[in-house]
Amino acid sequence: MGLVIPLDERIDDEPSIDPLVRLVNADMARVNQLILAKAGSDVEMIPEVANHLISSGGKRLRPMLTLAAAQMSGYVGEGHIALATAVEFMHTATLLHDDVVDESDMRRGKLAARKVWGNQASVLVGDFLLGQAFRMMVDVGVMECLGILSDAAAIIAEGEVMQLAAAKNMTTTESDYLAVIKAKTAALFSAAAEVGPVLAGRPRDEQYALRSYGINLGFAFQLVDDALDYGGTTAQLGKNVGDDFREGKVTLPVLVAYARGTAEDRSFWQRCIAEGNLQPSDLSSAIERLGRAQAIEETVARARSYGALAKSSLAPFKDSPHKRALLEVVDFCIARVH
Amino acid sequence: MGLVIPLDERIDDEPSIDPLVRLVNADMARVNQLILAKAGSDVEMIPEVANHLISSGGKRLRPMLTLAAAQMSGYVGEGHIALATAVEFMHTATLLHDDVVDESDMRRGKLAARKVWGNQASVLVGDFLLGQAFRMMVDVGVMECLGILSDAAAIIAEGEVMQLAAAKNMTTTESDYLAVIKAKTAALFSAAAEVGPVLAGRPRDEQYALRSYGINLGFAFQLVDDALDYGGTTAQLGKNVGDDFREGKVTLPVLVAYARGTAEDRSFWQRCIAEGNLQPSDLSSAIERLGRAQAIEETVARARSYGALAKSSLAPFKDSPHKRALLEVVDFCIARVH
Repeated sequence: MGLVIPLDERIDDEPSIDPLVRLVNADMARVNQLILAKAGSDVEMIPEVANHLISSGGKRLRPMLTLAAAQMSGYVGEGHIALATAVEFMHTATLLHDDVVDESDMRRGKLAARKVWGNQASVLVGDFLLGQAFRMMVDVGVMECLGILSDAAAIIAEGEVMQLAAAKNMTTTESDYLAVIKAKTAALFSAAAEVGPVLAGRPRDEQYALRSYGINLGFAFQLVDDALDYGGTTAQLGKNVGDDFREGKVTLPVLVAYARGTAEDRSFWQRCIAEGNLQPSDLSSAIERLGRAQAIEETVARARSYGALAKSSLAPFKDSPHKRALLEVVDFCIARVH
Repeated sequence: MGLVIPLDERIDDEPSIDPLVRLVNADMARVNQLILAKAGSDVEMIPEVANHLISSGGKRLRPMLTLAAAQMSGYVGEGHIALATAVEFMHTATLLHDDVVDESDMRRGKLAARKVWGNQASVLVGDFLLGQAFRMMVDVGVMECLGILSDAAAIIAEGEVMQLAAAKNMTTTESDYLAVIKAKTAALFSAAAEVGPVLAGRPRDEQYALRSYGINLGFAFQLVDDALDYGGTTAQLGKNVGDDFREGKVTLPVLVAYARGTAEDRSFWQRCIAEGNLQPSDLSSAIERLGRAQAIEETVARARSYGALAKSSLAPFKDSPHKRALLEVVDFCIARVH
C-alpha cells in the first residue's frame, strides 16, 4: 500500500509561482500587516504615497524569497517577517526614486506616485521607507543580516547611478550593462534569499548557495523584463511597452540589435537612444529591427542560462517542497515572455 | 605656588568653535580621509557629485559632536571615526535630497549639485551615501548605535515630508513648525552626540544627557538658521538670503510676524508664502515687517532658551576641556546672528 507521491504533479502545466505563494502564505499575511503598520505615520502624506504603491500589489517576489529561504533553512522565530518587510521597503523606496529619475508616468499599472504627489514626496517617502527598513533590521538584531542588506542598499544605488551614466549612450558595452543589472536588480534578489539561512544560523555553503540562487534569478528576471519592454503587454509589465526605449535605456535587446545590425540599423539606434530624437513610428520600427536581429530570442536565451545557474545553485539542498517551489519560480520568471 | 588655571580664558572673546575643533582635530583628519575613501566608487559620477558637496566644506559640526562626545566618554577604539563619517554622510545625503525637493540653486556658496549634474544624480548619489553610512555603522558593529542612527534616518525623512506638507501653508502652527525642526535638524544632532557615550559603554544618564544636549542644540541651530535667512549674509549662509521666503517655507520668524501683524501684514504673508505670488520688492518688505514685529529678536530669544537647555543638559559631566568646548559651541551657534 503505502503513500503515493506523484513524481511531478505539475509536469504538464506552465511553471507557476503558486507553490511558492502557498508555502509562504501565512507568513506573507504577517508581512503585509507589518508593511501597513510600518508605512504608517502621523504625517498623512507618508501612508498615502506608500500605500498607493504598496496596494497596487507587485508580486512581492523579493520578500517571498526571504520567507521561503528562512523556512527552508528551518528557521524558528519572528525575524524573517521583519527582514522580508525590510526587503520589500528597500524595493519600494527604489521604485519611488526610480520613477523620479526616469521621469516615469506609470508604475504597476497606476499613475506613478510622482505624478500624483510630485517628485518631492516620492524622494522623501522613499527615504522614509528606507529608514524604516533599517529600523526593522536593527530590531531583528542580527548584525550579519544588517551587513548583507546594507551592502545591497549601497550597491543598488551605485547600480542606478551607473545606469544613469550609461543612459542614452550607445558605447555602453554588454559588460557595462550586466554590471548595471547585477547591481540594480540582482543584488536585492541575492540579499533577500541570503538572509534566510544567515538568520537561521545555517552553514556558509547554504548561505552561499542561496546568494548564488538569488543573484542568478535576479539576472534572469531583469533580462526578461528588458525583453518584455519590447514585446510584453501593458498588463504584464504594469508600465507601458516601450518605456525603456523612450527613456533611452541601453538594454541587452538594444545592444544585440545594434551589434548585429546594418549601418542603417546603427544610425537608427543612435538617433533614437543616444539622441532621443523620436518619431511616432520608431517604436514599431525598433521592434521590427529587434526581430530581424533575433535580439529578443538572444536575450531570453541568456535569461535561461542564468536561470539554469540559479537552479543548479540549489544543489546542496535536499529535495523539499521549498526547493521545488524555488526551482519552479525560476521557470516562472522566464516563462513571463510567452 | 601651584598651577594657575584661568577661570575662563576666553571671557572677553566672541564664543568660538575653535576649542572644539582643536580637541577633535586629529580624529577629524581621519574622518576626512574616510569621507573621501567611502565616497569613492568606480562609477565616476558618484565621487564627482559627493566631492562637490563634501569639498565645499560645511563646518562638519555633526561629526565633531560624535567625536567630542566619544572622547569625553573616554572611548578607546576606532568606532567613533566611522560613526562620525556615517553621521556626515547622512547629513550630506539629506542636503542632496533637500536641494531636489526645494529646487535650490545654491548650497554652501556653490551651485547646488542638482544644477550641475541634475536632480537624478542628486537623488541617487544621496541614496548611495546613505547606503555607505549604514555599511559603516554595521562595520562598527554596535547594535545600539545602529538603532539610534537608523531611528534618526527615518525621523529626518518624516520631518522633511512634514515640512513639505507645511510649505506654503499659513495655517501651520508654531507647534507644527517645532515638530518639523525637531525631526529634520534636531534628530541628527541628538543622534550624533548620543552615539558617543553608547559606543563607550557609559551609563544611561550620560547617554541621555548628550541626547538632550544634541536635541536642544539642534533646535537652537535651526532657529538661528531660520533667522539668518532674513538677515544674514550670503557668506554666512552659504545660500542666498531670502531662500526660505522664495520657497514659501513657513519658519518661526514668519509665524511670529504673522501672529503679531495687522490684517494688511497677514494678507502680505498670505500672498507671498501661501500663494507664492512674489514681486521683486517683497523680500525687503518682508524684512521690514519682521523688524516691526520684532520677529527676528523673538526667534533668537527662543534659540537662546534652547541653548540654555542644551548647556544645562551637560550638568552630569564634570568640568573638562571637552565639556567647556561643547558649552561654547552652543553660544557660537547662537552668536552667528550677530
